[in-house]
Amino acid sequence: MIANMTEDQLLVLVIKYMKEAKRNALQELLDELHPYDFAQLYKGLPEKHHHKFLTFLTPSQIAALIQELEYEMQIEILHKLGIERSSKVMDYMDNDDLADLLNELSVDKIQEFLDIMKNEDSKTIQSLMSYPADTAGGIMTNQFVWIHADQTVRQAVDKLKEYASFSENIYYLYVINDEDKLVGVVSYRDLLIADINEIIEDLMFTRVVSVHVNDDQEEVAQMIERYDFIAVPVVDDHNVLKGIITVDDAIDVVIQEANEDIEKLSATGKAIDFNTKAVTASVRRLPWLVLLLFIGLVSGSIISGFEETLEQVVALIFFMPMIAGMTGNTGTQSLAVVVRGIITNDTDRKTVIKLIFRELRVGIIIGLTCGVLIFLIAYFWIGSLTLGFVVGTSLLITLIVGTLAGTIIPLTLNRFGVDPAVASGPLITTLNDIFSLIIYFGIATAFLTQLSGL
Amino acid sequence: MIANMTEDQLLVLVIKYMKEAKRNALQELLDELHPYDFAQLYKGLPEKHHHKFLTFLTPSQIAALIQELEYEMQIEILHKLGIERSSKVMDYMDNDDLADLLNELSVDKIQEFLDIMKNEDSKTIQSLMSYPADTAGGIMTNQFVWIHADQTVRQAVDKLKEYASFSENIYYLYVINDEDKLVGVVSYRDLLIADINEIIEDLMFTRVVSVHVNDDQEEVAQMIERYDFIAVPVVDDHNVLKGIITVDDAIDVVIQEANEDIEKLSATGKAIDFNTKAVTASVRRLPWLVLLLFIGLVSGSIISGFEETLEQVVALIFFMPMIAGMTGNTGTQSLAVVVRGIITNDTDRKTVIKLIFRELRVGIIIGLTCGVLIFLIAYFWIGSLTLGFVVGTSLLITLIVGTLAGTIIPLTLNRFGVDPAVASGPLITTLNDIFSLIIYFGIATAFLTQLSGL
Repeated sequence: MIANMTEDQLLVLVIKYMKEAKRNALQELLDELHPYDFAQLYKGLPEKHHHKFLTFLTPSQIAALIQELEYEMQIEILHKLGIERSSKVMDYMDNDDLADLLNELSVDKIQEFLDIMKNEDSKTIQSLMSYPADTAGGIMTNQFVWIHADQTVRQAVDKLKEYASFSENIYYLYVINDEDKLVGVVSYRDLLIADINEIIEDLMFTRVVSVHVNDDQEEVAQMIERYDFIAVPVVDDHNVLKGIITVDDAIDVVIQEANEDIEKLSATGKAIDFNTKAVTASVRRLPWLVLLLFIGLVSGSIISGFEETLEQVVALIFFMPMIAGMTGNTGTQSLAVVVRGIITNDTDRKTVIKLIFRELRVGIIIGLTCGVLIFLIAYFWIGSLTLGFVVGTSLLITLIVGTLAGTIIPLTLNRFGVDPAVASGPLITTLNDIFSLIIYFGIATAFLTQLSGL
Repeated sequence: MIANMTEDQLLVLVIKYMKEAKRNALQELLDELHPYDFAQLYKGLPEKHHHKFLTFLTPSQIAALIQELEYEMQIEILHKLGIERSSKVMDYMDNDDLADLLNELSVDKIQEFLDIMKNEDSKTIQSLMSYPADTAGGIMTNQFVWIHADQTVRQAVDKLKEYASFSENIYYLYVINDEDKLVGVVSYRDLLIADINEIIEDLMFTRVVSVHVNDDQEEVAQMIERYDFIAVPVVDDHNVLKGIITVDDAIDVVIQEANEDIEKLSATGKAIDFNTKAVTASVRRLPWLVLLLFIGLVSGSIISGFEETLEQVVALIFFMPMIAGMTGNTGTQSLAVVVRGIITNDTDRKTVIKLIFRELRVGIIIGLTCGVLIFLIAYFWIGSLTLGFVVGTSLLITLIVGTLAGTIIPLTLNRFGVDPAVASGPLITTLNDIFSLIIYFGIATAFLTQLSGL
């Protein structure tokens, strides 16, 4: 039934059930929804209904809801629930999500929650919280099912039944030895088509690809993407199995990574979000803008250095925005290729040199095309062959320089391990402004005698 | 053993085995590799070894290799193999990948391959090829296992054994009725923990979330990401099950989508790739650049309209690049927020209006900060309060306008269903150039009497 309802109709129905205290009807409706839908519903409900809505949900439903929300709303819910009910909800949360959530709280608050949790859970959470958020350890979950190699398929199936809530979203059993070291993996499908009395050792796949707890989350996501994995096990220095990372977390990393690239290209800082407050968004964007303001003034002082040339040939100014803009544009294009390419390509010496020469050729082709075009336009507009030559040659050279700057600057930063965020789009654009002005006015000054009087 | 080898060592070993015709040793080594590794190996081998390498691989290995390569290399391999061996390889390929590959060939060539295939396969492929590449139908595979609701777990397991090669990367059995309509889904885990004589109908989950063959691939990827699905079934108008889309394809769509956003922001066209030839890359980037060149000339002609003002107050030129650049920068920041945000947020009226007002506030905060800053700088540099006022006020206004332009233009295009690619970063930057020049010189001209003589 609800499959055909719009979000608004659903909201109206939920509010109706809550007002009439129809607990069963509401539960029936909620049963048909996924966690993502819970979250949409919660966000859609007017503020005043939030608290009541939570009283209608089971702890496991609240856990599912919380995992789909932003930190601010997660913490708001914890406050509404109070410590005791919160800790019940936390029992149902994935441990990786729970660790992330706790990390957002104050030290006192964390301790309060940890105290109320079962000792075992509390230890697990504390160990998960000890890994940096952007490492394999930080995104792994410890909700997986392991087994020993000498056990049978029947024992494995029994264990799966026992840990039914864990095994729901996992498609492999991990095989460990007496020292908890990862020695193999066996898929549910292999268990299904095997004889019930077979020994795991005879079924298992022993060449397990695993990642280290300290590995960067981007590398893990890349591995899952390249190898089409559903999950990848996480081990420590001694190959002891500590957790697993599932493909849905890898997708989140891929999206986060893409957003970071776009933040670099647009110098927005961590502000690509519809819900950030205006002041916060401004504070994140301002540092870049102020830096770019000063760099922009450098362009101005370069122009002031050529004041004499400009006063003699005012027509030069007409082409200035176009030349500076084009150099910026071609630089941004190259930058996008590099920023996006270094994720999916290795950046060994050979690749880098090949790329730089490719971009050089692109710069020459683009420069020649646009240079000839602007030569003709300038000639017919201003009626001076010399001016056409100066503008055309400048554009040819600035486009080549701009393309190379957009390629070499981010590659160099990357090579020296400097955060390539420094090579943001606007920075490249503004630097290219400076290059282009020096080249343009430099060439113009060289031809000043021929240009005078335009 | 090979786990510890570098890629180069691996290549040397492969070439050695090939030269010594050690077929078994090479096969043993290949057994330890994943399809992605095959592709890395193939790309790493010198051109002259390619043909020989292929003769050492089994058809199923070549199929795995082909699926990891770009079209150009895929087609090169088909040529090397010849029609007959190629068609053997195609038998092992995922049908969705195969349909994509065939779509790249000439009509004659496609027919040649289809003729040589088994009638059943040929029909399947032709039906897959009939869906546009960016729809659910275009990315689905028909390699899944279905079952009827009245069958038992035992029969399901038998069917899984029969289709072992299909079932490897799938974690669900799809349940259909006599008319091939999708009526339920059952996970391998549910089968595992069920009694062997249970009827599928009693186990299956009936509220299956499915997508339509014509659904956009981005929507499908978004659904898989939101609901943390491993696979989603694809149905036609009559709810007949046509195929499934797996999470690894969804990741590819997410990456492709992010690249498209970056192409929009940087106006590179489909050129974000290290391996594209320079000429091809140039041809893809040039249309935008030429368009931007003409728009840049509009800026020039605006300046020429203010020639008189400029001749009287040359100092105005010093601040021109900074004002134009800053307006472009703030516009790019807002654009990034919109382009990236419309993927993950609904763009209903309420959200859009809220966002526009947020950006307006951001524009005012940024404008006031930078405006006051540049007022002070201009005053101390040039020594004129009026110039400081003109530059500061201009920057305040242009930053607000720039922020709003970067927000409203892409949102408007999106609302009217125009491809937001038109609102590329450089286009916004160049438009903001024009806005900023008009505002700056307009204000300056109004204060011309007070400014004269600077």
